[in-house]
Amino acid sequence: MKYQVGCDLEYDVSQTTPFVFNITPFENQHQRIIQENLEIEPSIELEYYVSPLLGNRYFRAIAPAGKFKIQYRAEVEIFPQEEDPTSIPEVPPDRLPLATFYYLYPSRYCQSDRLMRLAQSEFGHLVPDYSRVTAICNWIYENITYQYGSSNSQTSACDTAIERIGVCRDFAHLGIAFCRALNIPARFVTAYAYGLKPADFHACFEAYLGNCWYLFDPTRLVPREGLIRIGTGRDAADVSFATIFGTAQMTKMDLLVDLLDSQVLTETTAAISNF
Amino acid sequence: MKYQVGCDLEYDVSQTTPFVFNITPFENQHQRIIQENLEIEPSIELEYYVSPLLGNRYFRAIAPAGKFKIQYRAEVEIFPQEEDPTSIPEVPPDRLPLATFYYLYPSRYCQSDRLMRLAQSEFGHLVPDYSRVTAICNWIYENITYQYGSSNSQTSACDTAIERIGVCRDFAHLGIAFCRALNIPARFVTAYAYGLKPADFHACFEAYLGNCWYLFDPTRLVPREGLIRIGTGRDAADVSFATIFGTAQMTKMDLLVDLLDSQVLTETTAAISNF
Amino acid sequence: MKYQVGCDLEYDVSQTTPFVFNITPFENQHQRIIQENLEIEPSIELEYYVSPLLGNRYFRAIAPAGKFKIQYRAEVEIFPQEEDPTSIPEVPPDRLPLATFYYLYPSRYCQSDRLMRLAQSEFGHLVPDYSRVTAICNWIYENITYQYGSSNSQTSACDTAIERIGVCRDFAHLGIAFCRALNIPARFVTAYAYGLKPADFHACFEAYLGNCWYLFDPTRLVPREGLIRIGTGRDAADVSFATIFGTAQMTKMDLLVDLLDSQVLTETTAAISNF
Amino acid sequence: MKYQVGCDLEYDVSQTTPFVFNITPFENQHQRIIQENLEIEPSIELEYYVSPLLGNRYFRAIAPAGKFKIQYRAEVEIFPQEEDPTSIPEVPPDRLPLATFYYLYPSRYCQSDRLMRLAQSEFGHLVPDYSRVTAICNWIYENITYQYGSSNSQTSACDTAIERIGVCRDFAHLGIAFCRALNIPARFVTAYAYGLKPADFHACFEAYLGNCWYLFDPTRLVPREGLIRIGTGRDAADVSFATIFGTAQMTKMDLLVDLLDSQVLTETTAAISNF
Repeated sequence: MKYQVGCDLEYDVSQTTPFVFNITPFENQHQRIIQENLEIEPSIELEYYVSPLLGNRYFRAIAPAGKFKIQYRAEVEIFPQEEDPTSIPEVPPDRLPLATFYYLYPSRYCQSDRLMRLAQSEFGHLVPDYSRVTAICNWIYENITYQYGSSNSQTSACDTAIERIGVCRDFAHLGIAFCRALNIPARFVTAYAYGLKPADFHACFEAYLGNCWYLFDPTRLVPREGLIRIGTGRDAADVSFATIFGTAQMTKMDLLVDLLDSQVLTETTAAISNF
Repeated sequence: MKYQVGCDLEYDVSQTTPFVFNITPFENQHQRIIQENLEIEPSIELEYYVSPLLGNRYFRAIAPAGKFKIQYRAEVEIFPQEEDPTSIPEVPPDRLPLATFYYLYPSRYCQSDRLMRLAQSEFGHLVPDYSRVTAICNWIYENITYQYGSSNSQTSACDTAIERIGVCRDFAHLGIAFCRALNIPARFVTAYAYGLKPADFHACFEAYLGNCWYLFDPTRLVPREGLIRIGTGRDAADVSFATIFGTAQMTKMDLLVDLLDSQVLTETTAAISNF
Repeated sequence: MKYQVGCDLEYDVSQTTPFVFNITPFENQHQRIIQENLEIEPSIELEYYVSPLLGNRYFRAIAPAGKFKIQYRAEVEIFPQEEDPTSIPEVPPDRLPLATFYYLYPSRYCQSDRLMRLAQSEFGHLVPDYSRVTAICNWIYENITYQYGSSNSQTSACDTAIERIGVCRDFAHLGIAFCRALNIPARFVTAYAYGLKPADFHACFEAYLGNCWYLFDPTRLVPREGLIRIGTGRDAADVSFATIFGTAQMTKMDLLVDLLDSQVLTETTAAISNF
Repeated sequence: MKYQVGCDLEYDVSQTTPFVFNITPFENQHQRIIQENLEIEPSIELEYYVSPLLGNRYFRAIAPAGKFKIQYRAEVEIFPQEEDPTSIPEVPPDRLPLATFYYLYPSRYCQSDRLMRLAQSEFGHLVPDYSRVTAICNWIYENITYQYGSSNSQTSACDTAIERIGVCRDFAHLGIAFCRALNIPARFVTAYAYGLKPADFHACFEAYLGNCWYLFDPTRLVPREGLIRIGTGRDAADVSFATIFGTAQMTKMDLLVDLLDSQVLTETTAAISNF
C-alpha cells in the first residue's frame, strides 16, 4: 500500500530554541520511503540522527526567534506482514531473546511493576498466545473511555488504570504495562494513521510474540494496516514528535494521510507486523 | 588498580524458575577483566548476552527446584580517567550528541518531567558545567537522609524529593532526574564498590559533560575510583542484579571487593570517567 | 452479647513523648461499657477527650523516658441492630442528610474523586440499595489479596486499586472510596474483633443507607456482630490507635477479645448497624 | 469593616441535578451578616444546613433541566482580631487541645505524613511560634510559582511540592501540610477576598497558635483583613463552593467584593484571627 503522509507544524519562537523532531517515518523492509520532502522556514541547517536498533529518525533544528514552520511530505509504501493470529504463541521468559528484555522492564509511563496483580487477575488465566494480547486490548477498549483532552503529558498507565479515561497514548501505555506485567515484551509505536479523525499523530503498541513484534491498537480507531510507523520506544517519553528546549508556542499542527492506492482499507483480524 | 570482586548468592527455588543476572563487570578500555569464574550449583547451562551500546553482560539461568547457588569471582583492572573538573562544561541541547538524548527523557524512577521547576529553582542559576552536577550531588547529600531499608522497589525520584530519605539507588535516581530536568543526559550505574560497608551492590550515576560520561556518587559512601562498573541503564529498572521470573527466595547475598594493589584509595576531587 | 476486650501495649521511650491513644470502645445505645480499667506504668496523669458527633474516646499520656506500659481491659455489651438487607435503599444526593456529606468527600486514603469511573463501570449498573455495597465488598474480597505486611501507612485506596493487595485497613479504604464515588456516604471504623487471628486492631467501614450507618467488612475475617467499635473517622488518619509525637519503639502489642456469653457467633446475612 | 459581597453563578442543566453550595459567609462574633439576599432562578425550594463546630453554611438546590441561576448578595461586617505576632507561641503536642487534633491528621490534599522530613529540614530549626508559620508562607511564596490554570482538582500538596507551581488552593494546601508535619494544627479557609483580581473565590489557611486560629495567605494576593470567610475545612474537599451531582455546565461566575467603609485597606503585619 502506498500512502502520502505529511504534516505542517508552526511555532512562535521567542528566542533561539533547539527542537528535536521525530516526524519522519522510519524505514525497513516493511516500510519504504519512496520520496520525501522537508521544508523549513526560515531555512536553517538540520542535523539528522537515526537511532541504532530502533531506527527512529530524529532531526534537530535550532530555530531562531520568529515564526518557525515545518512542512514534511512523504510517499511511503508499506508491506505489513499478515499472519494467522491463531498460531502465534507467547515466548516464556526462559526462551525470550535477551535482547527483548528492555521491553519487559517498567518505564516512565508504563509501571508494569505496580500492575502485576491486576494483570494476573484479569489476564493470568488466559491462553498465553496472541489472543491474550487481544484480550488486553479488548479490556482497555471496554474499560477505558476515550476522550480527547482527558489526560496530559504526565498521565501514566497507573493513572489510566485508576481513572479509566484517556487518549491513544494512554491506551497504548496501559496495553504495554499489562503485557510487561505478564512477561510479554511490549513497546510504544507512533504513527501516521490513515483514517484518523481528527488527523493527529497516533500512538499504539507492539508486543513480542512468536518471533517478532506484532502491532496492537486498543483504540480501534483505525485499521492497523493504515499505520505508517514513525517512532518506536519504551513509551511516549522516547518518541515525542517534537521535543522543544524552550518555550515556543505551537500555532498550527495539520496532518495529512492519504491512501494512494485505489483500495478500501478495513481492519483485519490478521496479526500484523512491520518491524 | 586491580580488584578482586565477587558475590555469593543463594536462593530457595520452589519450581523451575528463570533468572537473569547482571552481576558481571562490563568491559571496555577503562575496565579489563583479567580473569573470572562463575560457578553455578546445580550445574546448568547458562545463556550469555551483552547488550549493544551499553555493554551490560547479562546471563540467564533456568534454575530447577531446590537450592540454587551462584558464586562469581573476577579479577578486574580498572583505568578510570581522571580529569580536572574545572574545565568540563555542560553541552547545551543545540550541540548535545543526539545519541545521548535517550538519557534526557524521563524513565520509571526518574520523572524529570515533573521536577523541572524544582531543578530550575535549586540549580538553574548555577554555572552550567561539572560543578553544577557536583552541586546536585551536594544538595542530595545534604537534603536526603541515607537510611537502610527506607525505600522499596517502587520508590522513585519524586518520592525521594518529597520524603527526603532513601538508599544509594534513590540518591542516584534523584541525581539523574535533576540532571535530565536541566538538560544534562544522565544514567544509572551499578557497581561493585570498594570499601562499602556493609558490602552490597552499589548504585551511582553518570552525567554527560564535555564529551564523555562522568561518574557521580551523591552518597559519598565510597571513593569513585573504587567502583567496578557492572551495568548501565536509564534507571534501576534496566540493571537489576537479578530478575526472577517466579518466587524464589534469596537466602544469601555476600559481596567481595578487595583492592589487590598495595595502595590507599581515597576519594579524589578529580572528575572520573570510565565509559 | 457481652465481650471482654483489652490490649497490652509496651513502648521503649527514649525521651518524654506525648501519645494520643484511641483504644477504648465508644459508647452509645448500641454499645455499653459495663466496666473498664486502664493501667499505665509508670503512673502518669491522663487527659481524656470524647470527640463531638462521633464519640471517639481519645486519651493523651505524656510518657517519660523508659519503659511505658498500657494495660486496658473492658467488659462491653453490644446490641447491634439487625435488619433485613433487602429493604434498605441508598439515599440519593437530593435527599441525603446534609450532615452526611462530609463522608462523601475524598480523604487522605480514600481518593474517591479519582475512582469515579472505575466505581461507575463496576457498580454503576447495580440496584442502588444495600446489595450494591455488598457487591463492592464482594469485589474487594475477590480482587484484592489479603496479605499481612503488604502495605504501609501511606498506602491509599488508589494504590490498592492498582496493586490489588493489602490488609484490613486497605480493604476498608477501598470500600469507602468506591461508596463515596457512587454518592454513598462511607466512613472508617476501628474495632476489637472477636475471632480475628492473629489478634490485632481491626478495620472495616460503614455506609449510610436507608437512614442509618451499616457495617461492612470486605475482609470476611470475622463476624460483624463480633465487632466492638473503637473509633469512627473519615479514614485511618483520624483513628490511629496510637499517635506518637516522637520516636518511641513499640515492643509489645497483645489484644484480647473474649465472648462472655455462651453462644456461637457466626456471620449473618442481616444488615448490622450500631451507630 | 463593612463589605458588600456576592456572586452570580449560572449553569446549563441537562437533567434534574442536585447542587450543594457553600457560597454564603459564615457567622460568628468576628463576622456578622447585616443583610443578605439569595435569588434562584427558576424559583425552587432550598434546604439549608449549618455544619456543627465549623459553622459552614451550605444549601442544597435541586435544579431542574434548563438554565439555572444563583444570585447572592450580602452586607457583612467583620471584626478581625489583630494581635502582635511576636507574642504567639506554637502549642506543643503535650498541651494542644485534643479538639484540634483533627487538623493535625493528613487529608486528601494535605499529605502531611509524607512531608515530615521536608518540613523538618526547611522549618524544623526555626523558633516554634507565629514566625515559623510566616516562614512557611514565605517559603511557599518564594518557591511556588503562582499560575492560573496550572493545577486541577486532583492536585495535592505533594504534587505542588514536586512541581512547584499552583494556584491559591495549592498554596493553602501546601501551607497546611507543612504546618501539620510540624505538629501545628492547620485548616483550609475559603473566602470572598477584597481586591482579588480577577475576582474569584479565594483560598487561604489558618493555623492554631497560642489559643486561637490565625489566618495566613501565602499567595500575598490580598490583605487578610479583606477576607470574608465562607467555609472552613480540612482541605478543599470539604468546602467546594459548588458540589454538583451530575453534569451541569457552569456558564457564568462573577464575584463581587466591595468595601463599604471609606478606608484604605493594606496588608498588615499583625496576626489576624476571625474564628
